[in-house]
Amino acid sequence: MKNINNSKLKIIPLGGLEQIGMNITAFEFEDSIIVVDCGLAFPEDDMLGIDLVIPDITYLKDNISKVKGFVITHGHEDHIGALPYVLKEINIPVYATKLTVGLIDNKLKEHGLLKKVKRKVVKHGQSINLGAFRVEFIKTNHSIQDASALAIYSPAGTIVHTGDFKVDYTPVFGDAIDLQRFGEIGKKGVLALMCDSTNAERKGFTMSERTVGRTFDNIFAEHKNTRIIIATFASNVDRVQQIINSAYKFGRKVVVEGRSMVNVIGTASELGYLNIPDNTLIEIEQMKNYPDEQMVLITTGSQGESMAALSRMAADVHKKVTIKPGDTVIFSSNPIPGNEKAVSKVINELSMKGADVIFQDAHVSGHACQEEIKLIYSLVRPKYAIPVHGEYRHLKAQAEIAKNLGIEKENIFILSSGDVLELDDSQAKVVNHVQTGAIFVDGLGVGDVGNIVLRDRQHLAEDGILIVVLTLEKHSNMVMAGPDIVSRGFVYVRESESLMEEARHVVENSLDYCMDKKITDWGKIKNNVKESLGDFLWKKTKRNPMILPIIMEV
Amino acid sequence: MKNINNSKLKIIPLGGLEQIGMNITAFEFEDSIIVVDCGLAFPEDDMLGIDLVIPDITYLKDNISKVKGFVITHGHEDHIGALPYVLKEINIPVYATKLTVGLIDNKLKEHGLLKKVKRKVVKHGQSINLGAFRVEFIKTNHSIQDASALAIYSPAGTIVHTGDFKVDYTPVFGDAIDLQRFGEIGKKGVLALMCDSTNAERKGFTMSERTVGRTFDNIFAEHKNTRIIIATFASNVDRVQQIINSAYKFGRKVVVEGRSMVNVIGTASELGYLNIPDNTLIEIEQMKNYPDEQMVLITTGSQGESMAALSRMAADVHKKVTIKPGDTVIFSSNPIPGNEKAVSKVINELSMKGADVIFQDAHVSGHACQEEIKLIYSLVRPKYAIPVHGEYRHLKAQAEIAKNLGIEKENIFILSSGDVLELDDSQAKVVNHVQTGAIFVDGLGVGDVGNIVLRDRQHLAEDGILIVVLTLEKHSNMVMAGPDIVSRGFVYVRESESLMEEARHVVENSLDYCMDKKITDWGKIKNNVKESLGDFLWKKTKRNPMILPIIMEV
Repeated sequence: MKNINNSKLKIIPLGGLEQIGMNITAFEFEDSIIVVDCGLAFPEDDMLGIDLVIPDITYLKDNISKVKGFVITHGHEDHIGALPYVLKEINIPVYATKLTVGLIDNKLKEHGLLKKVKRKVVKHGQSINLGAFRVEFIKTNHSIQDASALAIYSPAGTIVHTGDFKVDYTPVFGDAIDLQRFGEIGKKGVLALMCDSTNAERKGFTMSERTVGRTFDNIFAEHKNTRIIIATFASNVDRVQQIINSAYKFGRKVVVEGRSMVNVIGTASELGYLNIPDNTLIEIEQMKNYPDEQMVLITTGSQGESMAALSRMAADVHKKVTIKPGDTVIFSSNPIPGNEKAVSKVINELSMKGADVIFQDAHVSGHACQEEIKLIYSLVRPKYAIPVHGEYRHLKAQAEIAKNLGIEKENIFILSSGDVLELDDSQAKVVNHVQTGAIFVDGLGVGDVGNIVLRDRQHLAEDGILIVVLTLEKHSNMVMAGPDIVSRGFVYVRESESLMEEARHVVENSLDYCMDKKITDWGKIKNNVKESLGDFLWKKTKRNPMILPIIMEV
Repeated sequence: MKNINNSKLKIIPLGGLEQIGMNITAFEFEDSIIVVDCGLAFPEDDMLGIDLVIPDITYLKDNISKVKGFVITHGHEDHIGALPYVLKEINIPVYATKLTVGLIDNKLKEHGLLKKVKRKVVKHGQSINLGAFRVEFIKTNHSIQDASALAIYSPAGTIVHTGDFKVDYTPVFGDAIDLQRFGEIGKKGVLALMCDSTNAERKGFTMSERTVGRTFDNIFAEHKNTRIIIATFASNVDRVQQIINSAYKFGRKVVVEGRSMVNVIGTASELGYLNIPDNTLIEIEQMKNYPDEQMVLITTGSQGESMAALSRMAADVHKKVTIKPGDTVIFSSNPIPGNEKAVSKVINELSMKGADVIFQDAHVSGHACQEEIKLIYSLVRPKYAIPVHGEYRHLKAQAEIAKNLGIEKENIFILSSGDVLELDDSQAKVVNHVQTGAIFVDGLGVGDVGNIVLRDRQHLAEDGILIVVLTLEKHSNMVMAGPDIVSRGFVYVRESESLMEEARHVVENSLDYCMDKKITDWGKIKNNVKESLGDFLWKKTKRNPMILPIIMEV
């Protein structure tokens, strides 16, 4: 593949670089665009009421004739979660490994898109041709099965994209990461490596998933007389497999609880990624037929999510499971940053009910630490380094690693979403910036809540609202009814009667003032009311509620 | 001291056991009550708009004639922060060590209470008599100077309360914890030990504060050519001392930035707890007269607090300090649970500005780990163990330690706030439960925001509000004006015009229905509007905004 006309390759991240999640990157060469991943992000704390965040794909819509397909590295939400929303806007084919397609199909089904969108299963080692590109799927290891790195071949050169990965020499299911192939591709010459940065601040090597299985065996051996409840990530099929293995070994039945857990296990075992011995899995209703010491519950809620099964058990509002003294509860997970307090709350509640809570050594990360990152760099030996997947601090930590491995500083690019990095063998630089952004999903609404609405929600959340209503006569502007003041989220009205009464006087004075000064413009009257009431309340309470004057006319 | 009439001692925690912070415990013997600590708690995530949380002291008010004084263990907010609020309600004397009184005085000054409340400085080793009680202050180590454990002598027996503590054999300032005295008191017989549980889940020993000084020296030696900015807790005077020591050693000037930092350093150096070499401290305005490599900035903001100095520097909105490439920024702190994301945000912003951010090895905890807890138990050898200070999981971890040290299970008490634990040498049990609770401080308001107001704020935060206003004629109930719908925090109105138009029709239909059915009761009309509009919006958007119908009458 020789690049005769000297066209350059463009790499355009459309999300994923300013936050964890929402991974989506376009690769463009002449009239071909392919898109790697299409993830969602979970809302930040200040995005009140927002359910999900998805990427703005204006750039893809504007160039829709060029877009050949989505290539998906693995089935986690931050890589596939925005697909159903995006595919409603641009219907292009999706390429991924079998389990990943299975998980995507679940989503498309929910959104009624299964018959409308083309999906194609690709095996590790296989390549697909998409316009000017050829994309090869390379086996990696991660906290979900069937994860892939991608070798993206273009006339301008080869890009290796690791996706999320770790190096697991002894995986629970299937093969170890195909290090040979990374070496082989590297040997032929790689333009750029886009490598997972999530754990780039952590020294050493991530432990094998298999070590968690040994921990389970130990815990099962030590807690032979109690019920065991294990919370983990629904998508970590290998983890579930190891729990099932330990359960089988120790003669326990397994119950699966939590909607997403049931879904993923269903899909994984249907597709052959999970090996469940006969008569091991039972329905939750059958639990009562077995003594505690013959039961294992696998459940969602390892992040303290308030609606998940484990949190409901801890809060005593789960319909079918009641925590009792002696229960052994294992958190097979680490709290994701931001979830620490929620997890701690669940641990406290479980402890109060007498459960023995174990949260150490029952988890390993799915991401490469520093030594693994160095290994991949050393196999691939790219000219350019483009750290991906992580917050800025993580990207910078990988940049530091790349520098120490001898990659020249000016060949390391920490990109921002929207940057257009143009590169070929002779040069790489950011030449342009395209529109990107975060679109909020709230209930059924996609994009109908934006920053102004969020700012209002924050204001309302902080100090509540006072609504001032009055009815004016059309021509005279005489007050016919009101002013009435109604408040929500401000103070206990019953205990603040005198304050509210004074507030009413302030409004009346303000209206008298407008009358005297012959101010008839409603906008000005409203502003006057707003300012005088706002000043009064600030002086009295040091609070700043939203004030909303409404004038009616009869 | 023999207990002739067989009266029992009562221990009544009035806060601090269901959450971190808000420590306050009453000790009652016949007609004497003393109160240990009077702290505040910081609001949980769901306490929208709340500034502080203070304890409900109804029990003390109801028994005010018995209350002899507050005995304060140390000057952290979770032990002194509620004092100014509580002292406004019950004016009783306060006993504490010198620095602790100094920090309390700062608070009383702000609240105009300095002349109204009696404070008395107590030295380590001294005792005070308060009714039936004698209270001895025992030297301990903690992340603030002048921390004390208390030996509380009563006719029913002796209680040892550790306060927050660690064992530091090589403290930066003053003496190590008075282990001999713990042993001596223990030898004479101790009824109950109330011991800090914060780090009871952590194995081993907490490192000496002095180790952080060595880390600073190393970092200063490695970063000779850059400006150094160090964020830490304002109250950790020893930490500040060690920064000043390193600065002096390496020929740097020190600037202190952030209001609470300036305050604490002022108080600490006035009282002789901080030793600042001449010409070392300079004003922030003088900074421009020195090259970067001769500057150290000590700043607040180590927890990512959005209004603190470091956060403002990171966000480029600090008036006097601009972060530049090459700056070395040290986080001399660990994120307190719940602050992880905020801290990470600041680290990302600093990194993006080219700063070199160091957040490892520059902090040690102020709380005892498992081996230190065992040490104190072994010196005090109490009959009863009452773990304090920590979430339930931490209390339980200490209970486990106590059990392993041979204390009988039925002599270990994990109390709840409000429990009345009655004890003497023969028996201990919870005999009663008194009123306790969390009172919200919002601006100037204390207690005027409660759960209903918070629930409204949460509702408003989640989905916003729709206000439906209409004017009816007095007798006929004819609609004279409206219905008008105004929304905030719901949707972009401009992009949802048709939705709002439809909503208006729904309201009109609802009013027509009421008219037809001759429903004239305003409450019923409002309910009808609320329900039909609520149903419509849920169907259309899967959102549930607050709906507030307001009827005016002309």
